[in-house]
Amino acid sequence: MIYLDNAATTLQKPESVIDAVVNAMRTQGNASRGAHNATLSASRTVYDARVKIAKFFNFDEPSNVIFTCNSTEALNIAINGTIKEGYRVISTDTEHNSVLRPLYHLEKTKNIDLNFVKADENGILGISDFEKLIDDRTKVVVVNHISNLTGNVNDIKKISEITHRKGAILIVDGSQSAGTRKVDVKELGIDIYCFTGHKGLLGPQGTGGLLVKDGIEIDAWKRGGSGVKTYEEDQPLDYPTRLEAGTLNSHGIAGLSVAIDYLNEIGIENVEKRELELTRYFYEEIIKIPGVKVYGDFSWIGDSNKSVNAVSDSFLGHAGIVSLNVKDYDSGEVSDALSNDYCIATRPGAHCAPRLHIALGTKYQGAVRFSFSYFTTYEELGVAIGALKDIAS
Amino acid sequence: MIYLDNAATTLQKPESVIDAVVNAMRTQGNASRGAHNATLSASRTVYDARVKIAKFFNFDEPSNVIFTCNSTEALNIAINGTIKEGYRVISTDTEHNSVLRPLYHLEKTKNIDLNFVKADENGILGISDFEKLIDDRTKVVVVNHISNLTGNVNDIKKISEITHRKGAILIVDGSQSAGTRKVDVKELGIDIYCFTGHKGLLGPQGTGGLLVKDGIEIDAWKRGGSGVKTYEEDQPLDYPTRLEAGTLNSHGIAGLSVAIDYLNEIGIENVEKRELELTRYFYEEIIKIPGVKVYGDFSWIGDSNKSVNAVSDSFLGHAGIVSLNVKDYDSGEVSDALSNDYCIATRPGAHCAPRLHIALGTKYQGAVRFSFSYFTTYEELGVAIGALKDIAS
Repeated sequence: MIYLDNAATTLQKPESVIDAVVNAMRTQGNASRGAHNATLSASRTVYDARVKIAKFFNFDEPSNVIFTCNSTEALNIAINGTIKEGYRVISTDTEHNSVLRPLYHLEKTKNIDLNFVKADENGILGISDFEKLIDDRTKVVVVNHISNLTGNVNDIKKISEITHRKGAILIVDGSQSAGTRKVDVKELGIDIYCFTGHKGLLGPQGTGGLLVKDGIEIDAWKRGGSGVKTYEEDQPLDYPTRLEAGTLNSHGIAGLSVAIDYLNEIGIENVEKRELELTRYFYEEIIKIPGVKVYGDFSWIGDSNKSVNAVSDSFLGHAGIVSLNVKDYDSGEVSDALSNDYCIATRPGAHCAPRLHIALGTKYQGAVRFSFSYFTTYEELGVAIGALKDIAS
Repeated sequence: MIYLDNAATTLQKPESVIDAVVNAMRTQGNASRGAHNATLSASRTVYDARVKIAKFFNFDEPSNVIFTCNSTEALNIAINGTIKEGYRVISTDTEHNSVLRPLYHLEKTKNIDLNFVKADENGILGISDFEKLIDDRTKVVVVNHISNLTGNVNDIKKISEITHRKGAILIVDGSQSAGTRKVDVKELGIDIYCFTGHKGLLGPQGTGGLLVKDGIEIDAWKRGGSGVKTYEEDQPLDYPTRLEAGTLNSHGIAGLSVAIDYLNEIGIENVEKRELELTRYFYEEIIKIPGVKVYGDFSWIGDSNKSVNAVSDSFLGHAGIVSLNVKDYDSGEVSDALSNDYCIATRPGAHCAPRLHIALGTKYQGAVRFSFSYFTTYEELGVAIGALKDIAS
């Protein structure tokens, strides 16, 4: 199988990650519960992972690295834990339902004043629209770093500047950026960064988390055992305990921790560069095929100021994601043909991004998403390009 | 290491469980997202696990088997999703903080009328107290199947009869019962059964769930991607999607599924019988040691009507848990000595069971908990008994 569905989950995990999970399942007790060797082993693994993850994202507080089971949980915690009755909240058309549905729910139950920055027909968000919508009444801005549908990268640094100038906080959905590009939460000015472990970070499913900047208060989400302060009726206030009730997935976290080591060995800049190169190659070939329509911002291709070696303030790069349609064919049928006839795994349909499909004009057709990883090869893309030529002709 | 902390997490997992996780990490995509082989493999694994778990607990609706990352999340979902403003709710002194803290929070935020069935000095709950407290105004009863501190088994069948007679629903915390004894949710009359995967069920950490009886409505908890009905602003209403936003831990679920097979091969009655025999042996030996005080209901030992072969309505059995203190020694110091000098893993302190420690009179001393699994041997218990003799003398 040629696996081009890495934006859903990366299929190829480093062997060292698998080994770490196996080792954890053989040796680790329950983290932070008691003090014998097995539980200490789990506690150390979890603590080491917090330290590594903090460093990986240039984040200062390992204790404010909170583990969750996926980025959806992290986003629910961040959104529900910071947004109060009547708040003015700004989000965008490029968001995933893991952001949209919690916000829609708060619109109904907490009467929040919810506004969206509109995406254009290429899925691009205008910075001037953030300037217009984020005003002095705004309390929280929620935006994804990278669209899971177009692969466009949002300009978090600029959005953060606007957000902070108006006294609001910025929650970033990093589901598609963690592990696929360099993310420096300090430089980008992110208050809460939510990530998942099983996509770009190459870790096991069942892992993820959020980084909570010092001073940002998030209400407890789950309540329960904390291994400390048992006689307090409230969930203890200290991070990470405030947001981590119950037994952690220390087996999965052991794998995630080693996955960070693996990415550090490759160098995250090399991952970013490779995915950008793969994307450019794929785009340049498929755009030649009559009947193929690609969605997203690829204006950087052919622009000599925006090479894969020059990701900068003026060029934010692009994720290893290319979504397209072939003529007016249903995206599900094209994806099925790719799977059945060419053994190529892609994802069709709506990708949990309803507002963006409406902006792109693909509500009914959906789109076929090709998404790459560091391990994707040009040979695999060659097969995919050939398959698209067949299907389009 | 002699591992006697199985009530925190089972350390020894079947090799087949580890193999299943490894295989899943090599082959499974994102469950319910798309239709290529890798995602279908994950979807099948998850669906098979629902079917097996349903059958294991004699539960009719695989679609109402909801996966969570642990039992704390399952309990938070069940408690917060069923209890509304002003409800009268009955719980007990034997509960874990994963039940108590969500309930205390609802007492503060939703003005619920919260009442506890009191435990006596042996941690026993009187059925007549349930009769008194559960009245016509009562909407929800939350009770654990087995105390994680004493190992006492609560009479769920009788509690369910009382609960249903008054028109309320019964939520059972099965954290200590799932995988350690036969649990027939239909026979016991349980409306919502919450379980974890990494304790008695011998599965990986990061797994757990709840069984929701047909007709019981639980509000959505996390909201987000569902892979279906993308354009609906609300989380879709169908189970399991209503309660399962985001990517499932299909790697862990693959392991849990095989763990159920393993338990089925042994026969759950044999697990129950073995843990009861180990418990009786250990209790009978340690009770002879001067200075050792044991907590919980062991009146069945020596009662010829209550043998390990006669778990019945009149004898509910006992979990493989024995908590004790040695003289007035701090439980942490005893547990440390067991770990450091004898390589025996136990758990001291409060075990997230504050009300029960108060009932037992051990709020300040805590207790040293020994907890067994099917794999625990009499030789290991012999070493533990010898160590306790040393420490007490």
